[in-house]
Amino acid sequence: MAKKLFDFQDGEQLEIPVLIKSADVRIAKNGKKFIAFTFEDESGQITGKYWNASEPDIERFQTGKVVHLKGKRERYQGNPQIKIYQLKLVDAAEQDAAAYVPHAPEKKATMQDELQSYVFEITNADWSRVVRTLLKKNGAKFFEAPAAKTNHHAFEGGLAYHTLSILKMAKSVSDQYPQLNRSLLYAGAILHDMGKVIELTGPISTTYSLAGNLIGHIVLIDEEIVLACQELKIDIYSENMLLLRHVVLAHHGLLEYGSPERPKIMEAEVLHDLDDMDASITMMSTALQHTDAGEYTERLFAMDGRTFYRPHDKPQSHDE
Amino acid sequence: MAKKLFDFQDGEQLEIPVLIKSADVRIAKNGKKFIAFTFEDESGQITGKYWNASEPDIERFQTGKVVHLKGKRERYQGNPQIKIYQLKLVDAAEQDAAAYVPHAPEKKATMQDELQSYVFEITNADWSRVVRTLLKKNGAKFFEAPAAKTNHHAFEGGLAYHTLSILKMAKSVSDQYPQLNRSLLYAGAILHDMGKVIELTGPISTTYSLAGNLIGHIVLIDEEIVLACQELKIDIYSENMLLLRHVVLAHHGLLEYGSPERPKIMEAEVLHDLDDMDASITMMSTALQHTDAGEYTERLFAMDGRTFYRPHDKPQSHDE
Amino acid sequence: MAKKLFDFQDGEQLEIPVLIKSADVRIAKNGKKFIAFTFEDESGQITGKYWNASEPDIERFQTGKVVHLKGKRERYQGNPQIKIYQLKLVDAAEQDAAAYVPHAPEKKATMQDELQSYVFEITNADWSRVVRTLLKKNGAKFFEAPAAKTNHHAFEGGLAYHTLSILKMAKSVSDQYPQLNRSLLYAGAILHDMGKVIELTGPISTTYSLAGNLIGHIVLIDEEIVLACQELKIDIYSENMLLLRHVVLAHHGLLEYGSPERPKIMEAEVLHDLDDMDASITMMSTALQHTDAGEYTERLFAMDGRTFYRPHDKPQSHDE
Amino acid sequence: MAKKLFDFQDGEQLEIPVLIKSADVRIAKNGKKFIAFTFEDESGQITGKYWNASEPDIERFQTGKVVHLKGKRERYQGNPQIKIYQLKLVDAAEQDAAAYVPHAPEKKATMQDELQSYVFEITNADWSRVVRTLLKKNGAKFFEAPAAKTNHHAFEGGLAYHTLSILKMAKSVSDQYPQLNRSLLYAGAILHDMGKVIELTGPISTTYSLAGNLIGHIVLIDEEIVLACQELKIDIYSENMLLLRHVVLAHHGLLEYGSPERPKIMEAEVLHDLDDMDASITMMSTALQHTDAGEYTERLFAMDGRTFYRPHDKPQSHDE
Amino acid sequence: MAKKLFDFQDGEQLEIPVLIKSADVRIAKNGKKFIAFTFEDESGQITGKYWNASEPDIERFQTGKVVHLKGKRERYQGNPQIKIYQLKLVDAAEQDAAAYVPHAPEKKATMQDELQSYVFEITNADWSRVVRTLLKKNGAKFFEAPAAKTNHHAFEGGLAYHTLSILKMAKSVSDQYPQLNRSLLYAGAILHDMGKVIELTGPISTTYSLAGNLIGHIVLIDEEIVLACQELKIDIYSENMLLLRHVVLAHHGLLEYGSPERPKIMEAEVLHDLDDMDASITMMSTALQHTDAGEYTERLFAMDGRTFYRPHDKPQSHDE
Amino acid sequence: MAKKLFDFQDGEQLEIPVLIKSADVRIAKNGKKFIAFTFEDESGQITGKYWNASEPDIERFQTGKVVHLKGKRERYQGNPQIKIYQLKLVDAAEQDAAAYVPHAPEKKATMQDELQSYVFEITNADWSRVVRTLLKKNGAKFFEAPAAKTNHHAFEGGLAYHTLSILKMAKSVSDQYPQLNRSLLYAGAILHDMGKVIELTGPISTTYSLAGNLIGHIVLIDEEIVLACQELKIDIYSENMLLLRHVVLAHHGLLEYGSPERPKIMEAEVLHDLDDMDASITMMSTALQHTDAGEYTERLFAMDGRTFYRPHDKPQSHDE
Repeated sequence: MAKKLFDFQDGEQLEIPVLIKSADVRIAKNGKKFIAFTFEDESGQITGKYWNASEPDIERFQTGKVVHLKGKRERYQGNPQIKIYQLKLVDAAEQDAAAYVPHAPEKKATMQDELQSYVFEITNADWSRVVRTLLKKNGAKFFEAPAAKTNHHAFEGGLAYHTLSILKMAKSVSDQYPQLNRSLLYAGAILHDMGKVIELTGPISTTYSLAGNLIGHIVLIDEEIVLACQELKIDIYSENMLLLRHVVLAHHGLLEYGSPERPKIMEAEVLHDLDDMDASITMMSTALQHTDAGEYTERLFAMDGRTFYRPHDKPQSHDE
Repeated sequence: MAKKLFDFQDGEQLEIPVLIKSADVRIAKNGKKFIAFTFEDESGQITGKYWNASEPDIERFQTGKVVHLKGKRERYQGNPQIKIYQLKLVDAAEQDAAAYVPHAPEKKATMQDELQSYVFEITNADWSRVVRTLLKKNGAKFFEAPAAKTNHHAFEGGLAYHTLSILKMAKSVSDQYPQLNRSLLYAGAILHDMGKVIELTGPISTTYSLAGNLIGHIVLIDEEIVLACQELKIDIYSENMLLLRHVVLAHHGLLEYGSPERPKIMEAEVLHDLDDMDASITMMSTALQHTDAGEYTERLFAMDGRTFYRPHDKPQSHDE
Repeated sequence: MAKKLFDFQDGEQLEIPVLIKSADVRIAKNGKKFIAFTFEDESGQITGKYWNASEPDIERFQTGKVVHLKGKRERYQGNPQIKIYQLKLVDAAEQDAAAYVPHAPEKKATMQDELQSYVFEITNADWSRVVRTLLKKNGAKFFEAPAAKTNHHAFEGGLAYHTLSILKMAKSVSDQYPQLNRSLLYAGAILHDMGKVIELTGPISTTYSLAGNLIGHIVLIDEEIVLACQELKIDIYSENMLLLRHVVLAHHGLLEYGSPERPKIMEAEVLHDLDDMDASITMMSTALQHTDAGEYTERLFAMDGRTFYRPHDKPQSHDE
Repeated sequence: MAKKLFDFQDGEQLEIPVLIKSADVRIAKNGKKFIAFTFEDESGQITGKYWNASEPDIERFQTGKVVHLKGKRERYQGNPQIKIYQLKLVDAAEQDAAAYVPHAPEKKATMQDELQSYVFEITNADWSRVVRTLLKKNGAKFFEAPAAKTNHHAFEGGLAYHTLSILKMAKSVSDQYPQLNRSLLYAGAILHDMGKVIELTGPISTTYSLAGNLIGHIVLIDEEIVLACQELKIDIYSENMLLLRHVVLAHHGLLEYGSPERPKIMEAEVLHDLDDMDASITMMSTALQHTDAGEYTERLFAMDGRTFYRPHDKPQSHDE
Repeated sequence: MAKKLFDFQDGEQLEIPVLIKSADVRIAKNGKKFIAFTFEDESGQITGKYWNASEPDIERFQTGKVVHLKGKRERYQGNPQIKIYQLKLVDAAEQDAAAYVPHAPEKKATMQDELQSYVFEITNADWSRVVRTLLKKNGAKFFEAPAAKTNHHAFEGGLAYHTLSILKMAKSVSDQYPQLNRSLLYAGAILHDMGKVIELTGPISTTYSLAGNLIGHIVLIDEEIVLACQELKIDIYSENMLLLRHVVLAHHGLLEYGSPERPKIMEAEVLHDLDDMDASITMMSTALQHTDAGEYTERLFAMDGRTFYRPHDKPQSHDE
Repeated sequence: MAKKLFDFQDGEQLEIPVLIKSADVRIAKNGKKFIAFTFEDESGQITGKYWNASEPDIERFQTGKVVHLKGKRERYQGNPQIKIYQLKLVDAAEQDAAAYVPHAPEKKATMQDELQSYVFEITNADWSRVVRTLLKKNGAKFFEAPAAKTNHHAFEGGLAYHTLSILKMAKSVSDQYPQLNRSLLYAGAILHDMGKVIELTGPISTTYSLAGNLIGHIVLIDEEIVLACQELKIDIYSENMLLLRHVVLAHHGLLEYGSPERPKIMEAEVLHDLDDMDASITMMSTALQHTDAGEYTERLFAMDGRTFYRPHDKPQSHDE
């Protein structure tokens, strides 16, 4: 199998096709233009600078294009980067951006099956109907979308993968604390971030839509629930529907984080905790994978700018 | 015309019918029960304690009942209260709670006419149709509802009156700053607090509904806009509708105050400013009306617990 | 089996032995003294006021005494309380305070066995030795202590019960995220709150010791770990020991909550999340047990003063 | 009429005289010096970099000089800038910096007249005398000064223009809420920012004076009021003068924003609201003027770093 | 010498003349009025409640009156209070409130002498002249005023005593850090709180004046400095005078604490530190004097509500 | 005596040996590498950039090496820097890094003597023994370590010098306020920052150790006190030892600053105040030494990013 971006060591030369995830044209201190690239393939993302860029270069090497990259992997201020020797557009026939996008560790079909098994356990008819209606309406995008633009699960299928991780913990927690309403927790978990299929533009070169900026994914999915109720002739002001909407609206936990209400029922609080925990474990793990033992990760913006230590695999005495 | 609660001076005796706005049964330090009343008529609200309450008293004197109150107005820790001599239920035939509720300084019909004149100035067809649809659906309650449970405009018609005050300022501001989109500002102003007809239970003994507690009036009206669009076949993701929803969703200005998004367009910021200004002028004015010149108001909870000084009507040298 | 405090309904008369958990002598507004009691038995705690207390009464009915309580259960401002008819000290021979203290839902022996099974899974020798040393040193108190003075798990065995709940979740989480160091998570979980056996005075009439006030349970257990290392000849500055101490020191998550360091390794962050989640589920559940369906709990101080809604058991349409 | 800086499109070449508003000498990554200029004429400000600057260049092209600028307008990271082809000093005879400074949309004489009409409406003799005394003392500077160094109304006459905008709104608000003391509101509005004539150094290359840095414009004008009273033999501790000083001192609304007291009278609160509203409308409008429809403004530092969306002029369906 | 309030032990009977420092009329839960007194003599302050107060009692026993108090000292919720047996007005001839007010530990003349010695060390002529002018103008009140209404140094002469404590530390600090400008530090220390002679109404029944509420002592003394300069023909915008005013204006350290500027010169920062330190040592010492060894003080409001532990005088093993 | 780094003026050429304190290799915008140096000798630190660095250069000029520096002192954006002409490694024989490190203004022996005199005044036997034990154990490092990595006292011997400054003030303060426990204050002052000998790696190229990052100097010294007690057979839970540990643990004053407890005894509060004051005076003084009269220092990160003004040495009228 062909080597990928992260199969190369520092100092090693590479010559492989990659996707241009972003291309910022900037002006160097010598007055000439250069392009700050982020390249991407299934193994992850890496940056590289293209000096003395001509106008045709700028025209040619745009976001979303697949290019043959010839260069050397280096390390700069602790982060890996590519020293670019040469860049060439891949033939139009091979311009298949989707093939270079990182994706969730599980296949789409597997995730669909797993999710279905949780839907079956929603015993409340109203919640079940709403969940199935919205999965049907948004399913295609739901299993492709990333869970975020940059922070966590920022890969194809990331939204579904993040949702499934929460559902797995929700299962353990419901087993351990039987006072929780399992159906409500599952229904809330499945819907909580589904508004992101409207908020974000998709897995390739993800950005925020106008609806995402002006309304936000939390209210966007709440609106979709209300429209689904309308279609299914379910009273939107019945206690059941208020509970489900509340769990979804409150899942950011704090008003400062964009929830219009703080959790006021137990399942809302628990969903918030599980969402937080999966996001933070994922962010720490991803950062630690790119960090050597005995070193600290880069600062994680979404975790208050903290940096995390990667311990050695085997015990260290304090003289080492 | 019969004297009202606030027509009596401190120390004066009174004997008038009033509405029981709230009745809390508590236990005195001597082990006996007493009722802490808030009485209300059109002139305002005042508290009074009913000592040694018997079980039949408690049964009889409940929230929402009209009673003949015999007592004396006193002042306790700076606030007026009634020393109760006697309390009797008014005959069933005269139990007309609505007649004792304070109401907006303007009549309902007048407010309806005024509001209509602003609706006419909304030149954008989509916004106009949505506004008219929701006014039709919620109109009856909209012109009766208070604007808040306790803070500002907590009287019958308060919601419409507050809305009109904002519209008047919105008119001045749009005249002065022509770069503002007048239609959007008017449409946003009319809808911004309309969710309160669902959030609050009405002008008599106002409390929060479950929908109010779990969803909140900001998202409740957003949902109603979406349903109205559905009915009117207006695309909810068109820029126009995103702008209108954003203006409404962002009107609390800060996430901490329950808006799921901060203002991201100019009209949203301005609506927030006008809403704040009308609420604070109203709260200060109401408190200052009950304060003597040279004295300070009670602490206003919704204004960070500040207290305001009422200046003398004519100049004071510093020796006075 | 004899009825307990929480087996009686509002309005029902009771005549049972209970423990005086606290007895505050106060002066009533009529100038006479009264005692504000909190009574306790295995079913929970309830308050009651004893009016016109004589000096001998005050002398007699002190914290830690068992009394025959004759009275009636009432509800006052939403909370249950006892109207006291008569109070008599139980014979000296029957003065067994410990028999009236609420205790964890699981027996001590069961909890000891369960905990042992987690200790077995700590595969790192140093951590295992330290954990076993400290369990041996503090074991007696550890399985009796409450987890807090008032907030959560404030009952006999509460500390061990809370620790076990965290361990159960730690197991699920370690299974789901294999990148976590299971041994470190288990060792940290077992020790994280063990300092409370020094910070708090025990299950009966729990208060803070001077060590608890001046040092706090977080640093107290850190010191114990260091002393254990000294005894076991383990280098306190080896990476292993720094990691374990860090997990324990950082478990409150934020400096503002008393941790001298924020989590800087993944297991510290996860332990903090699990600790938080178990504490909040327990606080919400306890409060909701005392709340009727369709009502809100009292404000929970340790959850930012929030109040939680108890949904109805079966679906409610919005007309009910 | 000659074209100005903002009359050129991106990509268009220009050759016009401009003022050097600021000139920072920096060292490029190639070790050579360059000058980062901000050029200015009546139409606004724009930046440009001058590479490989020689020592004579640095000597010649200093802040406050007028130069012939030959170059091309470009766009860099969303902001317009000038690519400099050539720079030449304008002849000494034509070195008239003042002619290139942006100024308020209204002429000085017009603003003086308008302001006078508000002064006439201050019916309280003391306030009127103090206002007229200070206008006389600081008038020349008052009608030339900017309202801020960079944020809002940062142009010649900006202080007076901002003051007049507030007065216009103060008029509408006083008409709508007759409980406000119009004279106090007008007097406070006229004086509120007058301390800036001492705090800032004037419209060309504005910086903070030592008095501005150590005392601040709020206290500086308060001191001037006190000195005026002294001169006019008005008792500084009379209620009238305390009220006026309070309105001025409290106009930033919060202690955190530099007011030594929060508003404690109604007019102080309202002046603060109007000041805020005019400043924010002006900042948003200015930023939106430089933004294309469908795009977002740059981040506005003085509005919590927010960015604002400029809607399309005609309706957009969600497919566009 | 006659025994004073704090010469009596708990449980001891007393019969002495005292000053009524405050007298709040309240309504007891039995519907009758009572007076909540704070009594005062040179030894300190203590509270007591007077039950079933008649209207003549209320008329008679007002703030500022000297009364013969017969009663018993008791302890209530940790604080001492007086159980009142009888209260009688002292003869008009003996109504000398000033004799019962606590005063600074040093005599007025001594404090004046000490202060003078610091004034002599102010070597800068301008600062010296301003300080001497303001001491002359406000001297009488300055040596009588308390330093605060309730928090620290709330006794006759407290302002001067607090000022002297700061000066003593300022001397040590200037000796230790010769880079500090001693003259500026001394001048700033003497003036920093002098505005309190205008802000507060004097040592007996201290309250805030209108000037205190609307302007605040920080700006009030700044204004007085400016007026003194005017009188002395010193340029108020000279660097010297800006420095002195800045030191005074910035002495609360943070904008949130009412300083319109944060310290921007070294002496301002140091004065703030010394002011804080003297205030907190004084508050802690006063509270600890009323606390038994091994106990905690009441919560100190002005120290973030903290409570402080009073250690035992001789070593305690941990078994005691 | 040979001239040092800070003996040269801007524009002056220099040719002296200096230590490389840090050497960051970066990539210039022209794609070539350069080294950003911080040079250091006893007179202080200064930066300089070495363009077009070859790989052998990078190999040769590393942190900790002594080099012959030939260049010119310049000023860049207000800060001094060196324009490098030539760089050569000093002969191996002369590679004595320690000779180029700035050190405390007092000699080590002097500081040891002074410190000893304070130890003698600790009259409590337990505190004295613990202090002497830990001084003996850590003494060598204690008199060499800096007090911080970059902020204040970041020079050889800085830790001891900072400790002595606090002790001197502690003496004055104990003299002035005899209610303070002098022994406790001295013992706490000596130990408060001693954990930094474990937290930091030493005076040359100071960084944080893993123990410093995961445990922090506050808890590290607390642990050392506990181990010392163990060795000395002093009960760690005796009141004396709890007090000493508390004073040390609480010396950062606020939980947010890393103290696990806020000060709860008077001496802890005072130690915190003195520590803060010495640190801030030192930071301001150091920054002001590098600032011209009439100018402002660079922003001081550890003082909330504030900048401080350096007044002129002789009076300035406001025209200058």
